[in-house]
Amino acid sequence: MSTTENRKSAGYRLHYWQGLPGRGEYVRLAFEATGTPFEDVAFEPGRFDDHVPRPFAPPVLVHGDVLLSQTAVILDYLAPRLGLVVDDPMLRATSSMHQLTIADLVVEAHDAHHPLGPQAYYEEQKAEAKKRARAFIDHRLPKFARHFENILQKGPWLLGDAFSYPDLSLFQTFAGISHAFPNAYGRLAPELPALEAHRARVAALPKIAAYLASDRRRPFNDSGLFRHYPALDES
Amino acid sequence: MSTTENRKSAGYRLHYWQGLPGRGEYVRLAFEATGTPFEDVAFEPGRFDDHVPRPFAPPVLVHGDVLLSQTAVILDYLAPRLGLVVDDPMLRATSSMHQLTIADLVVEAHDAHHPLGPQAYYEEQKAEAKKRARAFIDHRLPKFARHFENILQKGPWLLGDAFSYPDLSLFQTFAGISHAFPNAYGRLAPELPALEAHRARVAALPKIAAYLASDRRRPFNDSGLFRHYPALDES
Repeated sequence: MSTTENRKSAGYRLHYWQGLPGRGEYVRLAFEATGTPFEDVAFEPGRFDDHVPRPFAPPVLVHGDVLLSQTAVILDYLAPRLGLVVDDPMLRATSSMHQLTIADLVVEAHDAHHPLGPQAYYEEQKAEAKKRARAFIDHRLPKFARHFENILQKGPWLLGDAFSYPDLSLFQTFAGISHAFPNAYGRLAPELPALEAHRARVAALPKIAAYLASDRRRPFNDSGLFRHYPALDES
Repeated sequence: MSTTENRKSAGYRLHYWQGLPGRGEYVRLAFEATGTPFEDVAFEPGRFDDHVPRPFAPPVLVHGDVLLSQTAVILDYLAPRLGLVVDDPMLRATSSMHQLTIADLVVEAHDAHHPLGPQAYYEEQKAEAKKRARAFIDHRLPKFARHFENILQKGPWLLGDAFSYPDLSLFQTFAGISHAFPNAYGRLAPELPALEAHRARVAALPKIAAYLASDRRRPFNDSGLFRHYPALDES
């Protein structure tokens, strides 16, 4: 992006829970990959209760009069403005499709430690989590991983030759999964050469590499989507 | 829609599992609400394995050279073509946002009977399902329902005065929830006058009323997203 475009993109505010990467990180990566200034604001419950329509949950993006929630909607809004998607309706639809399949995987990775729902702590559902994590590792993770492996065998990026925002989201998701399930993912990774090469390719993008090395990057932890509980990984 | 527009919209093929409404029903409702002809095709695993990019799961929409999966992406593609959303980028984004919040609720309603994941039968996870359904009824369902109640208190439709496709999806979802949890939802419904009025308003749309009375409408059953297992409802 040119500096002029960067200056025009200012005024973005991302409201998200502090202290964890979570779904906010998918939006942060779009800003960071393009060197776009944005304000990272601690989400406060009740903050947007008077807005019509009220957002259901963070992340919430505020940009002038625009207020949007739902990660995939925020990214679809930002992508043409940040140059993170080809400006073509069908390629935008395909990008949304990839983003939503990634979002489905994210829910299942989260539910591996919260099978009884988000209202109770992991410690209150450890036995059920062990069963769900087993099913995730044995069935669902390989299915999703092979799906993306198959697509990436056709080109360096999810859209083929064109880099787009779901490439960032896929990177973040498998970074999270390999953090959460190092043994299980380590056993699967040799089957996934294109996905592994894609992860390395995203991590080596100069602005992403700089971001990952900075203190702006929030580490995965036991409050986020992707949690390393050894009891839930393969031994 | 005029007959001419209807004729132009022909050539839509929806591939979905037969024998259950599922996520395919969200797409069917868009066609039925607008009197748009479409072909309802039984999804066969492996059918699109050679397509680039391969769809992860049905529903799959085929329209000429276009092939899309992910319900919300299919609806965003169809909506301007069928007149089911205002042709304005921000109202389209807001519609997608509502659709994705509805999709989040659908996942949680499904997971009430499948907390250990989709690879095992309900009968193999009944004890866990009872716990997850309890949490859904006590915490998550009221949170989602009050969210939509709040929005609908501002206008007859989710976008205010303009009818759009998430109105159909919200109708379908609460039809499913009141089927699955008649007691729990019955206890909550008096708190939700705007949501209940919205359900009645959608059901009374002439084309929707005709569809619901037809044999094209698939009933909820124990293979779909919304299952009436008395053990999971409130007593």
